[in-house]
Amino acid sequence: MTEPADIRAGDPSPPRRTVISVDAMGGDRGPGAVVKGVAEAAAHDPDLAVILHGDGEALTAEIDRRGLGAIAEVRHTSEVVSMQDKPSTVMRRGAGTSMWNAVEAVRDGHARAVVSCGNTGALMAVSMLRLRKLPGVQRPAIACLWPSRNPSGFNVMLDVGADIRADARDLVQYALMGASYARNGLGLGRPRVGLLNVGTEDHKGRPEIREAGQAIAAAADDAGFDYVGFVEGGDIPGDRVDVVVTDGFTGNVALKTGEGTAKLVGDLLQGAFTHSPLSRLGALFALSSLRRLRQRIDPRRVNGGVFLGLGGTVVKSHGGADATGVAAAIGLSARLVRSGFEERLAMRLAEVGEIAGEVEE
Amino acid sequence: MTEPADIRAGDPSPPRRTVISVDAMGGDRGPGAVVKGVAEAAAHDPDLAVILHGDGEALTAEIDRRGLGAIAEVRHTSEVVSMQDKPSTVMRRGAGTSMWNAVEAVRDGHARAVVSCGNTGALMAVSMLRLRKLPGVQRPAIACLWPSRNPSGFNVMLDVGADIRADARDLVQYALMGASYARNGLGLGRPRVGLLNVGTEDHKGRPEIREAGQAIAAAADDAGFDYVGFVEGGDIPGDRVDVVVTDGFTGNVALKTGEGTAKLVGDLLQGAFTHSPLSRLGALFALSSLRRLRQRIDPRRVNGGVFLGLGGTVVKSHGGADATGVAAAIGLSARLVRSGFEERLAMRLAEVGEIAGEVEE
Repeated sequence: MTEPADIRAGDPSPPRRTVISVDAMGGDRGPGAVVKGVAEAAAHDPDLAVILHGDGEALTAEIDRRGLGAIAEVRHTSEVVSMQDKPSTVMRRGAGTSMWNAVEAVRDGHARAVVSCGNTGALMAVSMLRLRKLPGVQRPAIACLWPSRNPSGFNVMLDVGADIRADARDLVQYALMGASYARNGLGLGRPRVGLLNVGTEDHKGRPEIREAGQAIAAAADDAGFDYVGFVEGGDIPGDRVDVVVTDGFTGNVALKTGEGTAKLVGDLLQGAFTHSPLSRLGALFALSSLRRLRQRIDPRRVNGGVFLGLGGTVVKSHGGADATGVAAAIGLSARLVRSGFEERLAMRLAEVGEIAGEVEE
Repeated sequence: MTEPADIRAGDPSPPRRTVISVDAMGGDRGPGAVVKGVAEAAAHDPDLAVILHGDGEALTAEIDRRGLGAIAEVRHTSEVVSMQDKPSTVMRRGAGTSMWNAVEAVRDGHARAVVSCGNTGALMAVSMLRLRKLPGVQRPAIACLWPSRNPSGFNVMLDVGADIRADARDLVQYALMGASYARNGLGLGRPRVGLLNVGTEDHKGRPEIREAGQAIAAAADDAGFDYVGFVEGGDIPGDRVDVVVTDGFTGNVALKTGEGTAKLVGDLLQGAFTHSPLSRLGALFALSSLRRLRQRIDPRRVNGGVFLGLGGTVVKSHGGADATGVAAAIGLSARLVRSGFEERLAMRLAEVGEIAGEVEE
């Protein structure tokens, strides 16, 4: 695997650092958590550099405090996209916001990927406007990693909320993009792809799903993945597939249902272990095992929805992400950049574009 | 609350017992698990009686072995609906199967509700054919109970798989039916109802969801529930609402995703506690707390999807249900019968039928 040449981000970063453009203003916890996340990511990745967009004074103070001057460049913006801003408004009047400028830095070649904790709809709108969709892509998708029973520990699911609609052709493209992401993000040579449905029998589901199933099966071999057919909600955290394909409405509901369920179980578990002196003692003995479990299902570790189908790598971090979450999103974006993911995905989409195109005819 | 007069099931059951008709052949674990479930249910409910449909010889032997002769009547059938049978085939040729006869016993007034572990699609088809839809109902729904942060410990979600489509009018009826179920099944005076969407803002989601939201808001007061607006996947196990309304495709995926996630976390937890001698010791100390947690999230306890919108109470038990799961489904059906749920739901649907009807105009 040859690594693409990396780009310099001004003077502070020496050559061959992977530069990530970070919107430092979008998260619920403010720029302090973002800079702390940069520090955590940099501690694990000596070749990382960042361009931070946002309140110049606050960011410079945080960077100095954490001694990140050598790998972080600050670009001041006074405007910020809020969680309430409508994507259409941000598209018209968003120029000069930290989010806009963070995307623009990728467009201008100053950075290889962008990370933002901000408003998902606005980030997708700005990314589509400035980075453009890849040739042949009708609807970009957001892919997430999901804790699973697979050896890698994760499955890929998409779309988890870029667009509430998806026709058969979109679902076929999601399969291609998801397989490519699994190959480069999880290192799987030949990912297994499944299409989410309410049953595994061929006659189940909506017409567009049955149509997409046939087209994905036809595209699988050329695109280098195995199509396992329809899968169900229980397979999302399972080991039958590596990539789960669905529309953005269903995927978003499934993602949030899974997160909510895991959190409920975790909270009840915590309650169980503080219930009595004896159970507190038990927790003490089992502490290291419980820590390992917590880490395995920690949603912060899989923080980072990747936007697929665009002319640039965009990673959306959870709005409520803390430093560990931000570090995970930055680490993921750097890993994807180094895998050459973007170039390969574009190539793959062009190669099998005709197959996906045939679905609509 | 006055209890409706109960019906006698032949000689074995004395007057005022609540008679449940049970399809004993549908489950993966065979009639033995079903009869054991009857025994568990009867141990907690002295007023329960059952009519068991299926292999007469096997069932009679099981009943004798468990000393259930006084409360169980066996009705022999040699035919069984399999999990592979298509609903349309069962509708045409299903007469004489254990499932068909179990439903027929409710239609004939021999029992007050039916419980089956069999093929969901076939059970819905036979139930619609023999029990008919309630006046004004376009699509019946399947409602499930979901472990939640609410004081009752559960939320209601519907539809979880009766029909993959739902238009605005269906969603309004699901809201009415779900509120009625929460009132009678969970004992909530004024349930809070939410409509599942990908965000809580008014402009989010598909057109039929926005339309349904307005109609549910208009119907809420007359129907005796509070409408809280759009909810997200994370609210399904949460405490913002008691009833989550969605179409059968999304609901089915969410249900199976939640089950799969809870099971993954449970298995990882088990793994964590057997990982080292120290953690095994810890588990020993925390045993009673862990048992309580396991019971709280045990899917068998909430076993039983209730079919709503039909002229009779039908409870679908999980195909893989063991005796505890079957007992929960039978207990739920008896509770619903005694609450007078069916009569009230029919009345409520008739009352607000005009409101729901207006949506389509």
